[in-house]
Amino acid sequence: MNKLELFDNIKKKKSFLCVGLDTDITKIPKHLLQLTDPVFEFNKQIIDATIEYAVAYKPNTAFYECLGTKGWESLEKTIQYLNQIKDRPFVIADAKRGDIGNTSTMYAKAFFEQMNVDAITVSPYMGSDSVKPFLTFKDKWAIILALTSNEGASDFQYSSSEIKTQLFETILEKGKKWGNENNMMWVVGATKAEMLKTIRNIVPNHFLLIPGIGNQGGNLREVVKNGLNKQCGLIVNASRSIIYAGNKNDFAQKSTNEAKKVQKEMEQLLYQYNLL
Amino acid sequence: MNKLELFDNIKKKKSFLCVGLDTDITKIPKHLLQLTDPVFEFNKQIIDATIEYAVAYKPNTAFYECLGTKGWESLEKTIQYLNQIKDRPFVIADAKRGDIGNTSTMYAKAFFEQMNVDAITVSPYMGSDSVKPFLTFKDKWAIILALTSNEGASDFQYSSSEIKTQLFETILEKGKKWGNENNMMWVVGATKAEMLKTIRNIVPNHFLLIPGIGNQGGNLREVVKNGLNKQCGLIVNASRSIIYAGNKNDFAQKSTNEAKKVQKEMEQLLYQYNLL
Repeated sequence: MNKLELFDNIKKKKSFLCVGLDTDITKIPKHLLQLTDPVFEFNKQIIDATIEYAVAYKPNTAFYECLGTKGWESLEKTIQYLNQIKDRPFVIADAKRGDIGNTSTMYAKAFFEQMNVDAITVSPYMGSDSVKPFLTFKDKWAIILALTSNEGASDFQYSSSEIKTQLFETILEKGKKWGNENNMMWVVGATKAEMLKTIRNIVPNHFLLIPGIGNQGGNLREVVKNGLNKQCGLIVNASRSIIYAGNKNDFAQKSTNEAKKVQKEMEQLLYQYNLL
Repeated sequence: MNKLELFDNIKKKKSFLCVGLDTDITKIPKHLLQLTDPVFEFNKQIIDATIEYAVAYKPNTAFYECLGTKGWESLEKTIQYLNQIKDRPFVIADAKRGDIGNTSTMYAKAFFEQMNVDAITVSPYMGSDSVKPFLTFKDKWAIILALTSNEGASDFQYSSSEIKTQLFETILEKGKKWGNENNMMWVVGATKAEMLKTIRNIVPNHFLLIPGIGNQGGNLREVVKNGLNKQCGLIVNASRSIIYAGNKNDFAQKSTNEAKKVQKEMEQLLYQYNLL
């Protein structure tokens, strides 16, 4: 999916919500466990329940890998299911990959060719040749970690007082030259909304993937104020607050309600900032 | 496997060689392709051919993921095969994982519980809480990227002249406090052998995983000179130079010859530095 199509979907659904499919088999409703593939069945119902309100889905590979081959199968089925939806959403493999060139090429093939997702999250620590192999696929995206939403982010990304330029700024400055706004996005934790201004000065036109809304405590209004651009430029993710909104027979309905609530807030903000 | 057992194996085999199972289905001998699981069959033959000379094996997850569920199955079978060998080698999943706490926990379960490897490579970019979940499993190891062997390493790891302390040093200084020499190792590219001295000043007792010998051009003698410690403290990896030493019917024999050559050099060095 290219940038314009993504923006069109955002306007159509009046939403820039991404639903994170961090599907933990120990947290899904018990009545699903008797089915052949409970993880896929859960995802399918969550997707059906939220598709009206979400422009993107982000399965987190860790939650599938921990179930071995069976988990990998559930992941593939989930992505196939997302890909056959009529108004196909933007699909992100949250995999945080990144390795030397020939290995990154293999990861790119795994996710862009084998699975056919739109985007994959990438760790920048190993530098240019670890990221570039992800940038050579038409209408596919590398979403690079800039500033993450977790506590440990302060260890290196913006830690040391003796460093004049913070690491996340160096990564954005150097990294943006590896590709362009049509094949790169950046992960920016919502819990650091005040730093979004700095980031928007460096990458005014790129899309940003914002995790950390919901259970991680980010504030949507602040994110939009500091991060929105002319083509929206934001994909905001919520995982646990939506997919685990309920854990009984009506879990899907509960997740609809949660997704709708976030979408309504987004719609209001999109109007307020004249994007609708 | 704990540190003492690893050192014992090194002394027994007179080797600190790790064979990297970067098994690319397009590069393995053609006659294997008619078998049900050519990737596993290749690995099995390479393992049998090199087990006398290698103390560790390091499957690179990218090369399996790019084949989808079938690839993941080959990876699991390879690890099962390694685990049932009588003198069980040290098994490293070269996966470069790392994410927020609850996700890293899932990756740790995937590799330490589901697959039962000894160690997994981890990217440090997201800081302490992205690494710590890997440090809570008895006799299991996180091998953290410090200084990698690729060109892009210079982008952030030791790049900017305005930064007094290089990033890889900060990562070693902070990171070593997250765990200890019994649950953490460090990835240090052999192509930067001169920087090993700096690293040994910071982490004198930790084991280091050294990729980049062989096709990547690292020099074993230099690595040993600057990196060896009292318990060896080095696992040196070679991938392509060993596993693709041949590509005909005698490929396994060719890989034996290559592994033996490296082991002989290692044996000599271990004697020279009085570890044997």
